[in-house]
Amino acid sequence: MKQIEANNPELKSWVHVAPDSDFPIQNIPFGVGMPPGKTARVCSIIGDKVIDLLEAWDLGLFEGISVDREVFANRHINDFMALGKEKCREVRQRISELLRVEDPFQAEIHSGRLLFPVSQCQMLMPVKVGDYTDFYSSEEHATNVGTMFRDPDNALLPNWKHIPVGYHGRASSIVVSGTPIHRPVGQTKPADSDNPVFGPCKLLDFELEMGFVVGKDTRLGQRISTAEAEDYIFGLVLFNDWSARDIQKWEYVPLGPFLAKSFASTISPWVVTLDALEPFRTDGPDQNPEVFPYLQYKGKKNFDLDLEVAIQTENGDEKIVCNSNFKYLYWNMAQQLAHHTVNGCNFKVGDMCASGTISGKEPESFGSMLEISWKGTRPVQMPDGTSRKFINDGDKVVLRGHGQKGSVRIGFGEAAGKIHPAKEWE
Amino acid sequence: MKQIEANNPELKSWVHVAPDSDFPIQNIPFGVGMPPGKTARVCSIIGDKVIDLLEAWDLGLFEGISVDREVFANRHINDFMALGKEKCREVRQRISELLRVEDPFQAEIHSGRLLFPVSQCQMLMPVKVGDYTDFYSSEEHATNVGTMFRDPDNALLPNWKHIPVGYHGRASSIVVSGTPIHRPVGQTKPADSDNPVFGPCKLLDFELEMGFVVGKDTRLGQRISTAEAEDYIFGLVLFNDWSARDIQKWEYVPLGPFLAKSFASTISPWVVTLDALEPFRTDGPDQNPEVFPYLQYKGKKNFDLDLEVAIQTENGDEKIVCNSNFKYLYWNMAQQLAHHTVNGCNFKVGDMCASGTISGKEPESFGSMLEISWKGTRPVQMPDGTSRKFINDGDKVVLRGHGQKGSVRIGFGEAAGKIHPAKEWE
Repeated sequence: MKQIEANNPELKSWVHVAPDSDFPIQNIPFGVGMPPGKTARVCSIIGDKVIDLLEAWDLGLFEGISVDREVFANRHINDFMALGKEKCREVRQRISELLRVEDPFQAEIHSGRLLFPVSQCQMLMPVKVGDYTDFYSSEEHATNVGTMFRDPDNALLPNWKHIPVGYHGRASSIVVSGTPIHRPVGQTKPADSDNPVFGPCKLLDFELEMGFVVGKDTRLGQRISTAEAEDYIFGLVLFNDWSARDIQKWEYVPLGPFLAKSFASTISPWVVTLDALEPFRTDGPDQNPEVFPYLQYKGKKNFDLDLEVAIQTENGDEKIVCNSNFKYLYWNMAQQLAHHTVNGCNFKVGDMCASGTISGKEPESFGSMLEISWKGTRPVQMPDGTSRKFINDGDKVVLRGHGQKGSVRIGFGEAAGKIHPAKEWE
Repeated sequence: MKQIEANNPELKSWVHVAPDSDFPIQNIPFGVGMPPGKTARVCSIIGDKVIDLLEAWDLGLFEGISVDREVFANRHINDFMALGKEKCREVRQRISELLRVEDPFQAEIHSGRLLFPVSQCQMLMPVKVGDYTDFYSSEEHATNVGTMFRDPDNALLPNWKHIPVGYHGRASSIVVSGTPIHRPVGQTKPADSDNPVFGPCKLLDFELEMGFVVGKDTRLGQRISTAEAEDYIFGLVLFNDWSARDIQKWEYVPLGPFLAKSFASTISPWVVTLDALEPFRTDGPDQNPEVFPYLQYKGKKNFDLDLEVAIQTENGDEKIVCNSNFKYLYWNMAQQLAHHTVNGCNFKVGDMCASGTISGKEPESFGSMLEISWKGTRPVQMPDGTSRKFINDGDKVVLRGHGQKGSVRIGFGEAAGKIHPAKEWE
């Protein structure tokens, strides 16, 4: 495990941080927000206070770190990430120093200009996403899907344990937590009909995933080894890969999911750096059969991060429908990147990869309604007396995630999206 | 058909244009090039002369058209497209006027500063591509593939005539004509083995496609009707969707093609405006069964554009292996956009969609080696005495395309790529 000073669990801040906050002084993630009356800018967060990094720059608090003002006066963190991990570490370290109780520096006297209640800040998409790839890296999820739709005795397809299976997704429709989502319309084919019908999706689902953001370009033709891969991963977000199961079923043969996914994906607003997640490294599942050399790796490449999904009904009730963990994934991020680039495919700063639905072995850890309700055969009872096979209009789906080690909790906040009725044809 | 003055077939230029040039005064496409000793900038072309539009701006030749210098002092045409079709039409019209034999204006005396032999200009990617979608819109291609790999009696899948089937592709690896392409490596599974092997692709193929470039944003949740669709299409390019057939076969179930395609796609450097293609509108194939209302359209939405594919061997011999036509497509671009956005998926300026392989009914019009050699069973004889089932190292694949109406020929130039051996593992 890398020793990173800003991760020191002993550090305390002069900013109040509740014990169950995802954002202690050891986190310092990056995002883009609009503090009250201000333009969009690169921010961080501690406790429930957004830190305005542009203002920090203007106050001279990054003195000695060579970084242009435009990097923070920016609607995305891409230019910040493109500075490279060393520079980003210097900035994270400096923010950590400014926040420490032992060394309030000048920040406390400036705090009225620097810190804003998160409830008063509009958070925006942190990253301008170039390409987006969705993997399918949970053995339990792939097994559940194969069991339901194909053959329980051969649930995993022959390629699954050789390849971190993935496909290209739609980048333009990745939105930040809080963005309203309209139920998509499209073609579906009822089981009892030879012909498709057109209308609102009837089987709307979430998928509990984690996404990682690439912070470094590669050239076309360049491969990334598993050993190098983490140099290219700036940080992680919660990722809800909304899915229209009925649209997907009709459209996806032979070229894969398309409109069933492209109407929206919801991410959390704060990109938590891979650095901040160092304490949560853990071993991944054994891989058998042995994978090709380009997919072999050394060290702990999985991360022990508790994940949950809540459904909130319109009356405000909340039901946790899934408790899973990022460590369950069969294929880790380093393997995903090594596979993605083995053919020479290039990456650009801001490209994003998601894990695929993260399911565990137990039904309560399944990461989609498709699995939780087992194709609708096991409805979920909600606190308001209704039940759910899939997601209803008016439901808000909230993803949350964090790691805990001793007293330090590093989390992601929320990726939340409320489902609104399908739009009428204009 | 829209009357566009710059399309007038009577127009002649003071710049010499060979009769078989793709770029007469009626074309005026847009691209990005580096004239000798100059930085990248937005350009056009007439005959074999690149027109430096930044220089034209500096010379005041766009006076009266409100457009910022930065639009032309740019590595991509995205900002130019984002001005909107009306503004782009004004610019195209002005360029047309500057080039006319009757009205050389001041351009001829400036021509030493404005015009550069295309052989001396390095052409770059014209567009910063956001998202890229590949359709599968040729009935003949889909039928050929279905016949070879599934059931000749049910070659088309049940969804094919209801849906313009498509999938997301990789945007980062779309490269401009002339960029060397290395044979990809990856996993494949030989037919006689239970286990995959790793190594260079053995069945490397081209796909003859046309791509269109979106020039106008939509909001998330906004649908584009077939009637509106062409307002969103700025122009077209030739598109070679390089494909590794053996990698594809092993990886593509259940989520579609991934590394088999993402190593590279090659486009032509000039974006030919939809306006310039007005004379070539034609009817598309009858669609039966009737499509859903959101896919119905009025008017001529196909385009009569002759397309060809040549393979050049290292000794310089060339063999034309395919003569096809863009008009063969079953699903037109307006239907593709209407389908793509029916679920609310948003578009951004610079997004690209490709048609899928464009095959005709006759074997000489098949748009991929897979079809031409019928899975390798009908090798193609080359002028140098060798034969081809797929593409060899050292082969250069050249796509060309143009429409001809009377004496006016509007073309695309070339999308060319030479295959280099697979890179050694670093």
